[in-house]
Amino acid sequence: MPRPLITLTTDFGLRDPSVGSMKGVILSIFQDVTLVDLTHAIPPHAIASASYILGMASRYFPPGSIHVAVVDPGVGSARRPVVCSAGGQRYVGPDNGLFADICRRDPQWESFELAETRYCLKAPRLSPTFQGRDVFAPAAAWLARGTAPNAFGPRVTDLVGMESPKAGRGPDRRGSSLQDGEIIWVDRFGNLITGIEPSPGATDYVVSIGGKDVPLVTHYEEGPANAPAALVNSDGLVEVFVNRGDAARTLGASIGTPVALIPRRRAT
Amino acid sequence: MPRPLITLTTDFGLRDPSVGSMKGVILSIFQDVTLVDLTHAIPPHAIASASYILGMASRYFPPGSIHVAVVDPGVGSARRPVVCSAGGQRYVGPDNGLFADICRRDPQWESFELAETRYCLKAPRLSPTFQGRDVFAPAAAWLARGTAPNAFGPRVTDLVGMESPKAGRGPDRRGSSLQDGEIIWVDRFGNLITGIEPSPGATDYVVSIGGKDVPLVTHYEEGPANAPAALVNSDGLVEVFVNRGDAARTLGASIGTPVALIPRRRAT
Amino acid sequence: MPRPLITLTTDFGLRDPSVGSMKGVILSIFQDVTLVDLTHAIPPHAIASASYILGMASRYFPPGSIHVAVVDPGVGSARRPVVCSAGGQRYVGPDNGLFADICRRDPQWESFELAETRYCLKAPRLSPTFQGRDVFAPAAAWLARGTAPNAFGPRVTDLVGMESPKAGRGPDRRGSSLQDGEIIWVDRFGNLITGIEPSPGATDYVVSIGGKDVPLVTHYEEGPANAPAALVNSDGLVEVFVNRGDAARTLGASIGTPVALIPRRRAT
Repeated sequence: MPRPLITLTTDFGLRDPSVGSMKGVILSIFQDVTLVDLTHAIPPHAIASASYILGMASRYFPPGSIHVAVVDPGVGSARRPVVCSAGGQRYVGPDNGLFADICRRDPQWESFELAETRYCLKAPRLSPTFQGRDVFAPAAAWLARGTAPNAFGPRVTDLVGMESPKAGRGPDRRGSSLQDGEIIWVDRFGNLITGIEPSPGATDYVVSIGGKDVPLVTHYEEGPANAPAALVNSDGLVEVFVNRGDAARTLGASIGTPVALIPRRRAT
Repeated sequence: MPRPLITLTTDFGLRDPSVGSMKGVILSIFQDVTLVDLTHAIPPHAIASASYILGMASRYFPPGSIHVAVVDPGVGSARRPVVCSAGGQRYVGPDNGLFADICRRDPQWESFELAETRYCLKAPRLSPTFQGRDVFAPAAAWLARGTAPNAFGPRVTDLVGMESPKAGRGPDRRGSSLQDGEIIWVDRFGNLITGIEPSPGATDYVVSIGGKDVPLVTHYEEGPANAPAALVNSDGLVEVFVNRGDAARTLGASIGTPVALIPRRRAT
Repeated sequence: MPRPLITLTTDFGLRDPSVGSMKGVILSIFQDVTLVDLTHAIPPHAIASASYILGMASRYFPPGSIHVAVVDPGVGSARRPVVCSAGGQRYVGPDNGLFADICRRDPQWESFELAETRYCLKAPRLSPTFQGRDVFAPAAAWLARGTAPNAFGPRVTDLVGMESPKAGRGPDRRGSSLQDGEIIWVDRFGNLITGIEPSPGATDYVVSIGGKDVPLVTHYEEGPANAPAALVNSDGLVEVFVNRGDAARTLGASIGTPVALIPRRRAT
């Protein structure tokens, strides 16, 4: 049997020892596991960005991998801790919308509440403010050890965020866009990742952002020097970039900036 | 037998390949080991902060884990490299006060000097300036392989920092505090971790910091919006925070700022 | 058989999930591998800095380790993906000069093009812009699984950068230097690492940088307070530092600043 695999995604950063403590808890319960950091640089409390990163990265992991995600503004209040299964992967974290997009893509998704305290950290004193270490890390380790998801607690059928379909995919105000959305991530090079996955076959468009129409190309090297261009990136999403430059700085764009695909013949 | 576990804590950061080189040295001596980074973002030469982080995080690791800590302003000069055993964990690093707090908590602590050169890196040229790679990493790997601590060199009974009891726990100048101390860590969210562990049963107090008295609450969500509050955090220490805000910025506080617990009836 | 070891060196940073995705791809092909990050903080597109870091760190890893390096301004254009063997280690990445210095040190070096698409990621859609995940990560995993380097494609004998001997090692303009070079890395403490490896036996020199001559000492503690000094560092390279200070700031130096070793009797 291959060694189980647990990934970690948080807004804890790498300065603090929070991530290290979570790994200690996991390895105390089950030592024969491979641990992988997805990212710990989610902006504080940015549930939507974390959901995007998690969905993008987890698809590259072997079936049965366990992904712990802790971006949790409501820690200590009433939201439920959950385990979800979807797309052949397993997810552990707070029920605050983090897993809704991932579950919506798989009609077979299921989820259970992490209610059984016997799967939580056994400490002299459990903390109301660090469920990542006390609840989510141990649950991931018990899953890796073979505990079935439904052993943790009652089935959850009303996952937060599942009811509302993802916003911002209809035509924009101008009535002329094929699809629209917004910037959901700015990467290290200042590339602007949009939430727009172009419809199959759509190729004859430009990308409208911040009042500018930027051309669609095939790879980064094709972009004009010092001017923005767009491509469909390695995750299938429209991405705006400046060849060897910084698109976020050039366009003054950031997470939340609106974007639309406009048919090329009508481009202004 | 479970796979041995080695953690790393340094002030090297993650830009430089220093941490990677240490891991290469460890894996060259013993390949079947799990490596975990605690943090590499200790402020340069901040022995006290490293000692805090190490003590907080190591308690979540399985018994017998090996913790390498390299925060070492005196590298190349005369201080001794040591291995310490305390609280069921093992520690490797310079004898400069890093391990004093940890050993003070366990009357059974013991320590040995890393004197045997046969357990050091075999290089064409050993460096006087990178003992993390040349001395501490190999010692940790040999421990993981099963070498007994007393095989590395003579017993150390006068560990640096053991003689002086921890300062700053008596009453403050005003004569009215239950306990006082200072900020020893500022986390990513600007939360201010103090060195104060409240006496059992003490609950009827406010926290005095920078001339302000801030109320004690139970979890982050209970704190008033945009105003500082305090709680006993997941490590049992008093922590000052601003609900969904940044306490370090709000209070102008940083590592070293004095803090005191004041009885509530006397709060100003 | 010991578990295979794969290291990763990129300019991706740790904010984005790129590194996590590469690890997912590797672990999907071969799960029983140890993954180590060398650094993901190479300045964007800085091939020379990456080459230095890779050469310095990889020598500390066990024979047969696999080092994936992705610093790749030309991704999506015509440069070849390659695997190289040199110095008992294996390297995977773009043929853009990254591996030339490493191969030049070993007359037995060999290299093969990663041409066989069956060793690439099997995705619904392969990306022209993320060969780190789609080509280099899978190749490393197949090497770890035992695939021979020559199974990936045709032999490469004209590796980019091999023809030109390393520049900047001759005497400088003043005609008085023993050796000269430039700053190739600035570490976290502001220490300035030069590309100069002093000739065996050369000890009677000072280091000239930015119009200043700084003295040569043996270890950091020997340097005068608040003034620059130089030593031969743990990698055998001349390094300029300020004892408990920041040499980059003190001297206004950065990557690319020229440096020379000047005989001591002639020092101004």
